[in-house]
Amino acid sequence: MCEGTEDRDVTAQTDARGDVAILVPAAGMGVRLGPGGPKALRLLAGEPLLLHAVRGTAAAPCVGLIVVAAPAADIDEVASLLAAIRCPVRVVPGGATRQASVASALAAVPAEFDLVLVHDAARALTPPSLIESVAAKLRAGSSAVVPALPVADTIKRVGTDGEVVATVDRSVLGAVQTPQGFRRATLAEAHASAADDHTDDAGLAEQAGVRVDTVPGDDLAFKITRPFDLAVAEALLASGVVAQRPVA
Amino acid sequence: MCEGTEDRDVTAQTDARGDVAILVPAAGMGVRLGPGGPKALRLLAGEPLLLHAVRGTAAAPCVGLIVVAAPAADIDEVASLLAAIRCPVRVVPGGATRQASVASALAAVPAEFDLVLVHDAARALTPPSLIESVAAKLRAGSSAVVPALPVADTIKRVGTDGEVVATVDRSVLGAVQTPQGFRRATLAEAHASAADDHTDDAGLAEQAGVRVDTVPGDDLAFKITRPFDLAVAEALLASGVVAQRPVA
Repeated sequence: MCEGTEDRDVTAQTDARGDVAILVPAAGMGVRLGPGGPKALRLLAGEPLLLHAVRGTAAAPCVGLIVVAAPAADIDEVASLLAAIRCPVRVVPGGATRQASVASALAAVPAEFDLVLVHDAARALTPPSLIESVAAKLRAGSSAVVPALPVADTIKRVGTDGEVVATVDRSVLGAVQTPQGFRRATLAEAHASAADDHTDDAGLAEQAGVRVDTVPGDDLAFKITRPFDLAVAEALLASGVVAQRPVA
Repeated sequence: MCEGTEDRDVTAQTDARGDVAILVPAAGMGVRLGPGGPKALRLLAGEPLLLHAVRGTAAAPCVGLIVVAAPAADIDEVASLLAAIRCPVRVVPGGATRQASVASALAAVPAEFDLVLVHDAARALTPPSLIESVAAKLRAGSSAVVPALPVADTIKRVGTDGEVVATVDRSVLGAVQTPQGFRRATLAEAHASAADDHTDDAGLAEQAGVRVDTVPGDDLAFKITRPFDLAVAEALLASGVVAQRPVA
């Protein structure tokens, strides 16, 4: 479904695929996993987080196009990294903010894609079934969809002095993951109306008055941002709890 | 520091220890890890969660007594399980509710212990340093202390129909862990004033008007309640990220 652009197409296979485009903003410089290098290129089991994440999206039959927003200086490296992915992949230069990267990736999506998901490379072990679930909810009529898990821990509101202010009713809370799914126009309008940089696209849609629905999240879609998360992910892969996906 | 009671003392060592008593209510029948058997006796790396948890508490120098509230039918088994722990351990019959089990365990704590921690056997990998940290905060003057971690995921309020109602400001939220620490009188009064069963002792103290302070939580103190948590814990132990503690 790809069309020619100035961006890098690294399409190993162009068989008929799904009708969903998935955007992976991966231009951010992460600081929480330690200094140096783009966060999405940090290694997990010897491979960049981004490769794990993109492989997971490519394994979801609904996905017809993957658009990765990479650091401008790393476009070639990222394109090379993803060359063997068996799904159309486009690598575009990301912006200075996550929001600019999402906009850049969205601009590279051909008009025939009405369903657009925004994913996070740091959720590198996200199972394809979760991607399918978000897409299915969009097809059922939702304009915006987020995966949400029940909150397992007791949650308290804490004051600036470290004193507990109140216990929050966690039964009405959901811990939100990605991919977040949107009708293309909904995502475009939400981003157009945003004043500041946002890390939560569904939050933009909410602010724009769009109804956001939830689907059940998945434990494996946890975000790998801190060294402990990386250790958990490494351990899950090493122990075989999560199977390594084939490269292509 | 143990005194004779009708309960089971399984004290392998009575050297001078710390001044903190730690209660481990472990009488609950967990359903989230699957049916059958008390939750605290589920196996992690071949050993019951309870053994992992108690070993971690015994490794904290501040702890002078561990009181485990076990299912009445399992007292002998639990006493035998913990016989090699190198810290005074008392095993008492738990009640029908978690709150009753905490009360039963608290009643078994000799009067000289002014600082009492309540722990959760399901937080089996809790490092001794976190226990020390809670005790130190009590010694610094707090009446009630909980460990709290920043909330990593975006949190949304979700309606009964699965629609997102609002995005919550997670910067003011803390995910609370155990052990929770109290001056003995504070814990006793909080429990005496509680109407219903509670799983959050600090919440009882809050309701009683007690100021509850926080200390930084620890990733390893995560609660092992669902099969995924158990898989993570198994993987962390198998990969060596978390060292297996010696039995005694």
